Amino acid sequence: MADKEPLIITGKDEMRQWSRSARAQGKTIGFVPTMGYLHEGHLSLIKESHKHTDLTVVSIYVNPGQFSPNEDLSTYPSDFLGDIQKLKSIPGGVDVVFHPQNLYDYGNNDGLCDGENRVKTEGKVMSCLENNGMGHETWVRVEKLEKVLCGKSRPVFFRGVATIVTKLFNIVEPDVAVLGKKDYQQWRIIQRMVRDLDFGIKVIGVDLVREEDGLAKSSRNVRLSPEERKKALSVCKSLFNAKSDAESGQRQCKELRDCVVRAISEAGGKVDYAEIVDQESLEPLEEIKSPAVFCIAAWFGNVRLIDNIEINV
Amino acid sequence: MADKEPLIITGKDEMRQWSRSARAQGKTIGFVPTMGYLHEGHLSLIKESHKHTDLTVVSIYVNPGQFSPNEDLSTYPSDFLGDIQKLKSIPGGVDVVFHPQNLYDYGNNDGLCDGENRVKTEGKVMSCLENNGMGHETWVRVEKLEKVLCGKSRPVFFRGVATIVTKLFNIVEPDVAVLGKKDYQQWRIIQRMVRDLDFGIKVIGVDLVREEDGLAKSSRNVRLSPEERKKALSVCKSLFNAKSDAESGQRQCKELRDCVVRAISEAGGKVDYAEIVDQESLEPLEEIKSPAVFCIAAWFGNVRLIDNIEINV
Repeated sequence: MADKEPLIITGKDEMRQWSRSARAQGKTIGFVPTMGYLHEGHLSLIKESHKHTDLTVVSIYVNPGQFSPNEDLSTYPSDFLGDIQKLKSIPGGVDVVFHPQNLYDYGNNDGLCDGENRVKTEGKVMSCLENNGMGHETWVRVEKLEKVLCGKSRPVFFRGVATIVTKLFNIVEPDVAVLGKKDYQQWRIIQRMVRDLDFGIKVIGVDLVREEDGLAKSSRNVRLSPEERKKALSVCKSLFNAKSDAESGQRQCKELRDCVVRAISEAGGKVDYAEIVDQESLEPLEEIKSPAVFCIAAWFGNVRLIDNIEINV
Repeated sequence: MADKEPLIITGKDEMRQWSRSARAQGKTIGFVPTMGYLHEGHLSLIKESHKHTDLTVVSIYVNPGQFSPNEDLSTYPSDFLGDIQKLKSIPGGVDVVFHPQNLYDYGNNDGLCDGENRVKTEGKVMSCLENNGMGHETWVRVEKLEKVLCGKSRPVFFRGVATIVTKLFNIVEPDVAVLGKKDYQQWRIIQRMVRDLDFGIKVIGVDLVREEDGLAKSSRNVRLSPEERKKALSVCKSLFNAKSDAESGQRQCKELRDCVVRAISEAGGKVDYAEIVDQESLEPLEEIKSPAVFCIAAWFGNVRLIDNIEINV
């Protein structure tokens, strides 16, 4: 079968028109939001979308609104043409790639920002949403879920995620949105947001995809040196051990966490957090009695990786 | 011409289905959100909607999410059957009245709240969104515009407004939303929110409607005693004077404000704020050089009234 060539749309209005026209023809639309640099994990989301809807839209957009000025917006990897090739290789392909230039440009750009909504100050590229003249000032906040886990060290991150996903939902107007459980907290936040704001969209979470040796697939993995890459395996290995220990009867979260923190530290990683929380509320557990998820963020060199494993005992 | 009987819909899913089915038939939908107890001001919004769309949906829902525990949620006037009669009397009528029971009930009500999402604590009826077990925790914030004018004395008000309007937009899925400029700040906030979150909805603002003697129409006017009603006229009269003074050359905002505050205070009202601000940014002006709006909130007895007048010199 010949590869399917996706339609590439860059304009908000054109995107919405495409969706409305498809819906008017009775078609259902699945949506997979991404920041590009696609890997097997993303492709699994698209395959899941195929199961639920007639058409699939993938967005590729690195959202400046979710990066703090000191974070890695400027070094986030990208390979648009490579991404398109990967999308074409999936059986069934995708129908549309939505690839906007700048979703925060409302036609009153004061010239401080470049086309990707970054401002150069003191030689440093940073997100400029907070301090430019464009006037974006509306934010969606999921007030409890945004504060735990990754929210502790990245205070504006989920505000930016919930807001950009709201914008994309309003532009793409899908029936189904497919999100990866690799970003577990993000998935739960979007689920909650869709419920609380009454979006007419079904949210589906898909299990994460791992490399053969167990490392969770991530666009950031390319930034690991070979040595860091090896050390990073301590994350998934210790998570697998924790799950196995829990299934063998160890239900005390402190014990399970201590083992994981020790293993990662000994391998040379720096743990940001290692927490066992309730799968829905994301509240920390002392003892595993109900469906739990063990979530980890850790630094290897200057790369921050996250991983998680669900524990249903 | 026989009165048009509106369809009354109470369920979220039924409402969305109705809209989608109408859109599938090529119809456009206008939406007028209200808290009921309708007056001429509301009816003017519906007449405006008729000019822009094929169909019109009016929502009647007193939103607990925008009232603080110490505010007048429990005494907010309501007259659903009277409202329906008024809607039937408009030429062209309305197509749907969306009258939900509780838009914050996600099927996990812990029994603390009654059907209108109020909780009784210590004999006092209050909004229970902050402290119930339903878990609503997603809020839309328009961070600068929500803090000025009414936002100073009602800190959660516009958070509640922006959130309920987002929910209603997602349920009704209109093409056009019509809002009254009586609630000037609310109108500007919804306009900004629609732009920032990329809703595919056009927002139209309609001039406020006044009683014959000048008092701005408001559902809260019925709660004024005859004497308070008379005192309250000081608000519109002093606003008319300010506009006339500005048009005659007085551009200093301090002078204009002092006159208004004095007039209202002498009449026996208690001014909450009296500010001349930019029509879009709502930032206070020292001198009128660009399109401005003079906004007032004042108490008469235990009723808080708002009014405003645009000044284009």
